[in-house]
Amino acid sequence: MRMAELSARSGVPIPTIRFYMREGLVPPGELTSPNQASYDDSHVRALKLARTLVEVGGLSIARVRAVQEHIRAKDSELMGTLGSVQYGLTPEREPVEDETYRRAEQRVEALLGDRGWTIRERNPARRTLADTLATLTRLGYGELVDRLDEYASTAEQLAEREVPELLARGTAESVAEGVIAYDVLGDAMLSSLRRLAQEAVAAPLLEDGPGRG
Amino acid sequence: MRMAELSARSGVPIPTIRFYMREGLVPPGELTSPNQASYDDSHVRALKLARTLVEVGGLSIARVRAVQEHIRAKDSELMGTLGSVQYGLTPEREPVEDETYRRAEQRVEALLGDRGWTIRERNPARRTLADTLATLTRLGYGELVDRLDEYASTAEQLAEREVPELLARGTAESVAEGVIAYDVLGDAMLSSLRRLAQEAVAAPLLEDGPGRG
Repeated sequence: MRMAELSARSGVPIPTIRFYMREGLVPPGELTSPNQASYDDSHVRALKLARTLVEVGGLSIARVRAVQEHIRAKDSELMGTLGSVQYGLTPEREPVEDETYRRAEQRVEALLGDRGWTIRERNPARRTLADTLATLTRLGYGELVDRLDEYASTAEQLAEREVPELLARGTAESVAEGVIAYDVLGDAMLSSLRRLAQEAVAAPLLEDGPGRG
Repeated sequence: MRMAELSARSGVPIPTIRFYMREGLVPPGELTSPNQASYDDSHVRALKLARTLVEVGGLSIARVRAVQEHIRAKDSELMGTLGSVQYGLTPEREPVEDETYRRAEQRVEALLGDRGWTIRERNPARRTLADTLATLTRLGYGELVDRLDEYASTAEQLAEREVPELLARGTAESVAEGVIAYDVLGDAMLSSLRRLAQEAVAAPLLEDGPGRG
C-alpha cells in the first residue's frame, strides 16, 4: 500500500509516520520507484504499537526503540520476553539512597518473602516500589505505606487472572505486545477508573454534590 | 534556616532548589542581607511536594505550577478541592475522535450509569478512560476492554477505603496534598506491585524460573 493508505489504516497522520520512520520506530517501506515506497501490514502494526507507547504510555523515543529491540530479538523463552519488555517499560531513575530508602527496600523484600513472590534481582519494579514507599514516608503519608499489603493483594488478584491469558498468546512477539497492553494501557485504565471512583465515593460524603462545579 | 539546612532537611540538592525557585514552584526566602536569605518549614514542605510531583509523578513544571495554584486558591469546599487537584494531575491530550472513540465514550457512560457513579462532565478521567479503551480496541486488545468492569470494581474497592480517610484530613490544603499522594504515588505503588505480581505469577507457569536471567 502507499503512504496515504498506511495513514488511513493505522489512524496515524502522515507527518507523524514520517517522524517515526526518521527516528527508526517504524521500518522504511520498500522502494518501488526513486520517490515512491510501498508498505504492508507489518508497517500498520509497527505504527500502532509505536503510537501507543509514545502517546498513551508516555514513553520517550529512546525508550520505545529499546522496547522494540527487545521484541525484535524474539528471545525464544517467554519468561525472558515478559521480563525484557516489562523492564523496558519501567522508567529508570536513581533513588536517593538514604536511611528512609534502605528501610523501604527492606519493607519490599519482606513483602516479597511474605507473599512467596520470586522476583529477579534485576526487576526494576523492586527499586521503583521502594522509591515510592520512601517518598511517601518522607512526605508524611505513612497511612498510604500502611496500605502496601492491601495494594499487593489487589495486584496479585489482577495478575492471577491476566498472566495466564497473556502467556496463552504463544509467540514471544505477541506476548511482548500483550505485556505492553496490560502494563501501559492497563495502568492507564486503572488510574482513570480510580479517579472516577474517588469522585463517585466522595460526592455523597460531602454536602455539595457534583452538580455544583 | 539557611539554604544548606533547607537542602539537608528536605533532601533536595541545592541546585535543584534554585531551579524550583526560579521556576516559581517554591517561594523565595526572606532576605536577611543583600545576598543571604532565610527559609522556614513552609519552604521544606513546598520543596518536598514539588519534588514528588516532578520526580515521582513525572509532571511537567507547568503542570506542577497549576496544581500548586489550585492548592493555594484554598477553595473552601472540599469537593472542589478534590476535583481541582485531581483534574490538574490528569495529563491533557486530545483523543482521535473517530467512530471507535465514540463507541468507547458510550461504553464509559454506560459503565458510570450501571455503577451509579455520579461524575462531573468536566472530569478529564472520562476522556482518558474512553481514549484508553479506544486505543486498546484499535490495537486489537479487546480482551482487556472486556475487563473494564473488573477493573472498575477494583478501583471502587480502593476508593471506598481511601476517600473517607482522605476527607478526614479536614482542611482543603491537606486534602489537596492527600489527593496527590493517593493518586500520583498510589498509582506508582500499584503499578510497581502489578509488575512484581506478574513476574511472580508467570514464573511457575513457565519452565524456566526467574533464576535464569
